[in-house]
Amino acid sequence: MGDEERVLAANAAFYDAFAAKDPAAMTAVWARRAPLACIHPGWHALRGREAVLASWRAILTGPAAPPITCADAAAHVLGDVAVVICIERIPAVELVATNVFVREDGEWRMVHHHASGMARGAGDPEPEDEDPDPGSGLLH
Amino acid sequence: MGDEERVLAANAAFYDAFAAKDPAAMTAVWARRAPLACIHPGWHALRGREAVLASWRAILTGPAAPPITCADAAAHVLGDVAVVICIERIPAVELVATNVFVREDGEWRMVHHHASGMARGAGDPEPEDEDPDPGSGLLH
Repeated sequence: MGDEERVLAANAAFYDAFAAKDPAAMTAVWARRAPLACIHPGWHALRGREAVLASWRAILTGPAAPPITCADAAAHVLGDVAVVICIERIPAVELVATNVFVREDGEWRMVHHHASGMARGAGDPEPEDEDPDPGSGLLH
Repeated sequence: MGDEERVLAANAAFYDAFAAKDPAAMTAVWARRAPLACIHPGWHALRGREAVLASWRAILTGPAAPPITCADAAAHVLGDVAVVICIERIPAVELVATNVFVREDGEWRMVHHHASGMARGAGDPEPEDEDPDPGSGLLH
């Protein structure tokens, strides 16, 4: 298994822990020593291992934890760091995520997660085939 | 100047190019060889140098290019890759951004940009001091 496959397996483990609402498995996904950060949808950035893992414990043990699946994951390996882009599917909503992993103790572990909503939802047919024109958007 | 300062300077160059609506300066910010990706607010991911740079040309030369400033930038250097988190301020709106840089030819160059809106806007006093409780959110 090459690095790209290993990174995608680590990314899948993140979503497995999320879907299973398993705080211990979620903690195991994240790096032990590298600095952590997390940007939940609509929120400002959480920085530091304690704040990031506390947010996940709150989400996974709370009543609002959504069923989630990951789709279209693609990894770019840049030496000992890798960036994964994927789609997060929650009922009636599609999010896009940036997940960054670092090689630590020979394992790929997450250091950064940023998820945000897409203006075009899951109901749109094949939005990935549409011509992107962010210049027409409100922001950038 | 250490790596963290160099990375923050590269991040500042990105926002300078954005604010100046300068496509050539924007192109110079991005990596030449490493794979590029960009997630504009509300959009799905753009992958590949051509798609990413075309989106920036459209934004910077279009009528909707907003005045933008960057605040609260913090960099985590992970060897030859660095992750920057910062706030993007556009009139009446605050966004949060993940910017990833790679060391290429001795320079820090951008490989990934992901910007998204925050539910709490610029009008809120010191949102970074509030207790984050993403578990109460609609998504995660």
